[in-house]
Amino acid sequence: MKLYEQLATELQHRIDTGLYLPGHRLPSIREMSREHEVSIATVQEAYRRLEDLGLAEARPKSGYYVRSRRMAGSLPDASRPAQRPIEVSQWEDVLELLCGNEDKSMLALGRGMPDFAVPTLDPLLRGLVSFNRRIEHRGLEYDSLAGTRELRQQVARLTIDSGCTLHLDDIIVTTGCQEALSISMRAITRPGDVVAVDSPSFYGSMQLIRANGLKVMEIPTHPETGISLEALELALEQWPISALQLTPNCNNPLGYTMPEDKKRKLISLAQRFDLAIIEDDIYGDLAFQYPRPRTIKSFDTDGRVLLCSSFSKTLAPGMRVGWIAPGRYRDRVLHTKYVSTGASAIAPQLAVAAFVANGGYERHLRRMRPQYRRGRDAMIDWVSRYFPAGTRMSDPQGGFLLWAELPGDIDTLELNRRLWAHKIRIAPGVLFSASGKYRNCLRLNFAEEPTARIEAAVRTVGDEALRMHDSLP
Amino acid sequence: MKLYEQLATELQHRIDTGLYLPGHRLPSIREMSREHEVSIATVQEAYRRLEDLGLAEARPKSGYYVRSRRMAGSLPDASRPAQRPIEVSQWEDVLELLCGNEDKSMLALGRGMPDFAVPTLDPLLRGLVSFNRRIEHRGLEYDSLAGTRELRQQVARLTIDSGCTLHLDDIIVTTGCQEALSISMRAITRPGDVVAVDSPSFYGSMQLIRANGLKVMEIPTHPETGISLEALELALEQWPISALQLTPNCNNPLGYTMPEDKKRKLISLAQRFDLAIIEDDIYGDLAFQYPRPRTIKSFDTDGRVLLCSSFSKTLAPGMRVGWIAPGRYRDRVLHTKYVSTGASAIAPQLAVAAFVANGGYERHLRRMRPQYRRGRDAMIDWVSRYFPAGTRMSDPQGGFLLWAELPGDIDTLELNRRLWAHKIRIAPGVLFSASGKYRNCLRLNFAEEPTARIEAAVRTVGDEALRMHDSLP
Repeated sequence: MKLYEQLATELQHRIDTGLYLPGHRLPSIREMSREHEVSIATVQEAYRRLEDLGLAEARPKSGYYVRSRRMAGSLPDASRPAQRPIEVSQWEDVLELLCGNEDKSMLALGRGMPDFAVPTLDPLLRGLVSFNRRIEHRGLEYDSLAGTRELRQQVARLTIDSGCTLHLDDIIVTTGCQEALSISMRAITRPGDVVAVDSPSFYGSMQLIRANGLKVMEIPTHPETGISLEALELALEQWPISALQLTPNCNNPLGYTMPEDKKRKLISLAQRFDLAIIEDDIYGDLAFQYPRPRTIKSFDTDGRVLLCSSFSKTLAPGMRVGWIAPGRYRDRVLHTKYVSTGASAIAPQLAVAAFVANGGYERHLRRMRPQYRRGRDAMIDWVSRYFPAGTRMSDPQGGFLLWAELPGDIDTLELNRRLWAHKIRIAPGVLFSASGKYRNCLRLNFAEEPTARIEAAVRTVGDEALRMHDSLP
Repeated sequence: MKLYEQLATELQHRIDTGLYLPGHRLPSIREMSREHEVSIATVQEAYRRLEDLGLAEARPKSGYYVRSRRMAGSLPDASRPAQRPIEVSQWEDVLELLCGNEDKSMLALGRGMPDFAVPTLDPLLRGLVSFNRRIEHRGLEYDSLAGTRELRQQVARLTIDSGCTLHLDDIIVTTGCQEALSISMRAITRPGDVVAVDSPSFYGSMQLIRANGLKVMEIPTHPETGISLEALELALEQWPISALQLTPNCNNPLGYTMPEDKKRKLISLAQRFDLAIIEDDIYGDLAFQYPRPRTIKSFDTDGRVLLCSSFSKTLAPGMRVGWIAPGRYRDRVLHTKYVSTGASAIAPQLAVAAFVANGGYERHLRRMRPQYRRGRDAMIDWVSRYFPAGTRMSDPQGGFLLWAELPGDIDTLELNRRLWAHKIRIAPGVLFSASGKYRNCLRLNFAEEPTARIEAAVRTVGDEALRMHDSLP
């Protein structure tokens, strides 16, 4: 064991035993160097190791702190959705959420929006400007149906980090991840088909299932490891399921990352039942662990995984730059892409490609991951403090979304209505179910740097929930 | 009759009787003023009238010329497609056309691309630049699902010219017209439904029909007035047709504009059979007549027309800015839009909105319409000269596409293959049919200012066609 590893292990022990308390400052690097008679570099290495383990965090100009740990036992139970294919409802509630976000005076605590008011995105904006000056008319042309070569090249390179070896011809650029999911789903299913999903599940893909006349089979999902493979296998034996759609990395809304061996097993299961998998990896590059988790696609040996992603969560959603690696379904996906929107807009593709090629993407992620981790810790802390006793929470391993389960029968749709007067919006849990489940759950966004304003808003949500809780029969 | 009208009538008579020959210069305004003892203004008015009638054209710094007239009797016959609902094929040929366009060394004579290398688009490019500097982060946000307010306002204003009175809330912005058509089709049909179309018909919407598991009923179409209402009525009586999709103004590929009274009658027929109409108006603003022709939507009293358009043909396709006025189907269209791509990219919307608001759009159209008219006349002239005797042609009333029907059994797919060696691509007629019709037809693009290079290419097409013609049994 190397010196820094020994030191890290020692420090981990002190944190585990409570010698260093969550939220407290760790000894300075200089103090630590003196105390343990090791070099400054070794202490730095050890602290970075703690950071990778999620035990400590660096705060600029202040030093290292012990990360707030979530209270043991407060995770939600594994979900228990309906054990049969059903139709998706809840569109009106989704629409309300989307419209609520349009009102800029509202604090949209529930939306899936990253923080993009950060200086590491400035080169991207400058890129859009200079691109328009330089390439002039190219932004006005139709381009390759599959997307610009420049962007596909960069995307192929990026996917190496998730264990894939893709060529640029394996990539099709789309108008955001929503089009990637939509095209994938339409390319491989026919109306009336049954699609299995994780549950709770992203409302965008569930509405997609609804719009395409499909039925959904919600698979019980564990808040730390994802869908139950046993339940999936049972479902595959009982029902004619044509595709599985899931978000295994930094799941929305639960935040878990499915373990690698489970991903491997899922691929075997899919091969056995000849199941196509639509893998949503939109939050994958925002994982707090290093290296980032592998995709299911990276274990795929016969092209049955359609990997969907975009730069909407890692960079900014308004660019509408997404992509699919469609595997064996390339021809059908390309046809569906053609009839859906034709080629995608050129200007944003070229701007993103240049931003990635120049290292701006990596720099931006290096800034955002710790910010989102701080946001998570603050949000967990606030929810623990201000929400009714008995509230359970997810333990997000990446991204910027927290899932909370309120005790008793607190209806979060009603809670959301009451919050309207406070100019606060949350995402009610019912949106994430095909059939009106998760009525006592909600999703919260912690993308922005923690501020007193957000804390006050979370407190208000908690107060209103408490009031509803107390008035329950 | 006003003085200028009298003069215009006199001049029209001289043109009709051959006193002034096609392609020749008309007397200068000053000469004309002296000869007829009327004011300069009156002559100008009369010449503008001739221009509106399509009899004369202004050439900058050179004066007015008699427009080249097409040879009488050389229009194609009304089409006679299959008299029953069929499935759409021909995707491989469409894909080949799209991929052929990606090779920049090819002269893509068949593509549906406007000329955008013109100075009147510079403000749009500058707008994209300054927008990115000014509005900064707004281009990164998700915006209203229906599109930015600024753009919807301008679109609503523009549709006044086509006889509509739409409010900005009646408009939904899309990613190009292809998404407008795709969303409309998916919102109002279910797989297995039958959709009626004009024939020949835009291959993009036919592939859309194919992708959605629909059947197509091709309606016989006259090259000067559009679909036969009698044939449509018969079809409606015989088959369960759920929607009609057509391009009544500056039709692609035939170039006709359906007369107003026929549009009125079509609306009555649609009401009688409770038929939804998807109206593609993408070329409508490029009509050579003034004022531009009305849309079918403008006669719609009960919201059954989904008007689809975009700025892809009037400005530039790479911006991917389109829109729908979905009438009574707004809710379903909005849902389909949400699941297809979410909101559309913000930056191009704001740039186009500013360009329209500042008058750049009108200025650009004022430049392009005469250019396309010159392009049409040159192309008709070349095809008359270089194509085999017996070739028939459309008489485009707007846009930049010519449809030619070759004599005998010249297969334009094969012609296209032979043209590959000459680095020339055409659009084979078979793409515009669901069932392999129009094998001896092709579409040509005349968007660019006529040049010797294009003339040489058209001549090469003609030569190859002649060679094939001569070798036919």
